[in-house]
Amino acid sequence: MKLPHLPGRQEKPREKGLTMMMDKGLSLQQVQNLLETGGHLIDFAKLGFGTSVVSRNVREKVSLYRNAGIKVFLGGTLFEACLIRDSLKMYEHFIDDLQVDCVEISDGSMVMDHNEKCDFIRYFSKDRMVLSEVGAKEADVITDHHVWTHHMKAEIEAGSSLVIAEARESGNVGIYKNTGKADDELIHEILEVIPAEKLLWEAPLKSQQVWFIKLLGSHVNLGNIAPDDIIPLETLRLGLRGDTFFDVLPGEFEKFRLK
Amino acid sequence: MKLPHLPGRQEKPREKGLTMMMDKGLSLQQVQNLLETGGHLIDFAKLGFGTSVVSRNVREKVSLYRNAGIKVFLGGTLFEACLIRDSLKMYEHFIDDLQVDCVEISDGSMVMDHNEKCDFIRYFSKDRMVLSEVGAKEADVITDHHVWTHHMKAEIEAGSSLVIAEARESGNVGIYKNTGKADDELIHEILEVIPAEKLLWEAPLKSQQVWFIKLLGSHVNLGNIAPDDIIPLETLRLGLRGDTFFDVLPGEFEKFRLK
Amino acid sequence: MKLPHLPGRQEKPREKGLTMMMDKGLSLQQVQNLLETGGHLIDFAKLGFGTSVVSRNVREKVSLYRNAGIKVFLGGTLFEACLIRDSLKMYEHFIDDLQVDCVEISDGSMVMDHNEKCDFIRYFSKDRMVLSEVGAKEADVITDHHVWTHHMKAEIEAGSSLVIAEARESGNVGIYKNTGKADDELIHEILEVIPAEKLLWEAPLKSQQVWFIKLLGSHVNLGNIAPDDIIPLETLRLGLRGDTFFDVLPGEFEKFRLK
Repeated sequence: MKLPHLPGRQEKPREKGLTMMMDKGLSLQQVQNLLETGGHLIDFAKLGFGTSVVSRNVREKVSLYRNAGIKVFLGGTLFEACLIRDSLKMYEHFIDDLQVDCVEISDGSMVMDHNEKCDFIRYFSKDRMVLSEVGAKEADVITDHHVWTHHMKAEIEAGSSLVIAEARESGNVGIYKNTGKADDELIHEILEVIPAEKLLWEAPLKSQQVWFIKLLGSHVNLGNIAPDDIIPLETLRLGLRGDTFFDVLPGEFEKFRLK
Repeated sequence: MKLPHLPGRQEKPREKGLTMMMDKGLSLQQVQNLLETGGHLIDFAKLGFGTSVVSRNVREKVSLYRNAGIKVFLGGTLFEACLIRDSLKMYEHFIDDLQVDCVEISDGSMVMDHNEKCDFIRYFSKDRMVLSEVGAKEADVITDHHVWTHHMKAEIEAGSSLVIAEARESGNVGIYKNTGKADDELIHEILEVIPAEKLLWEAPLKSQQVWFIKLLGSHVNLGNIAPDDIIPLETLRLGLRGDTFFDVLPGEFEKFRLK
Repeated sequence: MKLPHLPGRQEKPREKGLTMMMDKGLSLQQVQNLLETGGHLIDFAKLGFGTSVVSRNVREKVSLYRNAGIKVFLGGTLFEACLIRDSLKMYEHFIDDLQVDCVEISDGSMVMDHNEKCDFIRYFSKDRMVLSEVGAKEADVITDHHVWTHHMKAEIEAGSSLVIAEARESGNVGIYKNTGKADDELIHEILEVIPAEKLLWEAPLKSQQVWFIKLLGSHVNLGNIAPDDIIPLETLRLGLRGDTFFDVLPGEFEKFRLK
């Protein structure tokens, strides 16, 4: 159905309006189900935190995703768990063996010197696409907004293709307050300094997805989307759900908006 | 197992105790899984809001549902998205092509004259089963209880087979307060005017399902049930879960109730 | 990947670090998906409350679980629903027919004399493994901590292999306050009297799983785990998720902990 006044979405590989899905241990069959119904809507699949170490059939799963044009990376927490154990060689070996060619570099769970973090970004971005994450998993660790923007800039310069703004899977830290509400001021300061197409906002809750679509439009990059929310998110982007119904329509339709 | 003192449930096609499931983008395999385990418990499947436009293999999915004796309709928001874009012909074409023979007429996302809404109900009910929804997706849009009952009566007269009392997928508007608690007074006023068998209550949260079963018994019509809750809901209807354990039993068992 | 400083987990059949999964009506295909990816992580599957009466293909499902080395039992509420209806013979027949050789004896939904409960444990434990549950599904039914520990001791003496500390599927009664927070004092009193390896804590929410792992380590027995949380729970046990990242590491790593 080709309705008028729908935002035109790019086909994959997209440059904007990216959707990054959180996979916390899906089976091969579940991934096939997803791909069949909504694979065209997924740009990245993150095998969250250390789930890739604990699950079976991960190599086959990575291959399913890649064949569907979906980039795969392992949660940054696993990178940190290897780093703190002085086991980065093992980490590289592991991702090469899985044929994962995208790497998340984060410092959300441990203290890391930011220059050192940028060195890792430089190192891994030589042969792989790097996504780097800013914002700790603990509440209130980075409170100064200038630190956020300074770190993001430095990480992009070091070779990060996309900077992920942390929200955790539960969506109540980093760019969100502990109620799950977006930190309006912080987000606007980030947007003044970093180009929107270089940012990917973790937005696990529907209210957060709606908030970002209202602020930045259909083509905002969103991450940590649950598998069951891939198709509902696309209806939000297109204004085919009550929450964003009027946000994609021209002004002449305003008269129909519920007061 | 044929336990005594279990409410006798009608077989499909049922006239009471209807369950309407919310499908937000299930794959064919997921639908097959559901049908295999609990297909006998599902009367209606709603392809929520605009998900039918965004998903693949929808025609095949509709066919799976229909072959299992489940009526299918598309979320009312899609009807509204087509109406506001002056594209109702396209909508009719779309549902005919999908072989959907049930239509939801709603005005939850946009301003619509109620006479016009009833005209749509009249039009679509000539060749199809119509379900109409009362109650906006925004909080506090219809506050006057008389408007609810007046609209419901008019819509049934116009040809609506079932009137759906709105709760949204999140269950915190319409017949519920923004905490998710049922609006007791409103619901009782509706029940005084509209026959229970003409009403289908959206009740996405377990606490809401329990509330309605306690109020109206095992055979209440409930909607917006998540796929994973189809089987648990049936146990609530039958008193085979703690929450409604005593609600289906005769008075002689009251002495065993926990204080 | 064999990282250093990871807690060594026993293979199945395990004696500690048990995980009991809540199955509320999974299909055969869904169970196969789970087993393929994380079957090595599941010790018990509970077919929750009365779902086994309402679902189709339950016998086949039990067989899938058992072939994967997973013990199966039916929710205690079904035992109570049969008992109150004077239909225990039917219950025994039902579980024998399903080839379920594990039984949950509970009194969470109805008044039951505790000596009578222990008699049931004695009776069923002659030929089957018995798990007994302590703590009512209603808030505030058992408030006296001595009653909890006294009942647990008596049930183990009567033949219970594991005592389950009740939390309901929603995780806000029994050992939790109605906010979902663990009842610290109660739990410590239980641990003073009952050996940890005889206890299985219902912990449906991630925050509760984290709480118990921080208190009792990777090898705590946890139950009512949702199917989608089986793999994430294992990452919590192993410290491969932010929440327990430092809890499995030796003291020398403390300097990297975020303040």
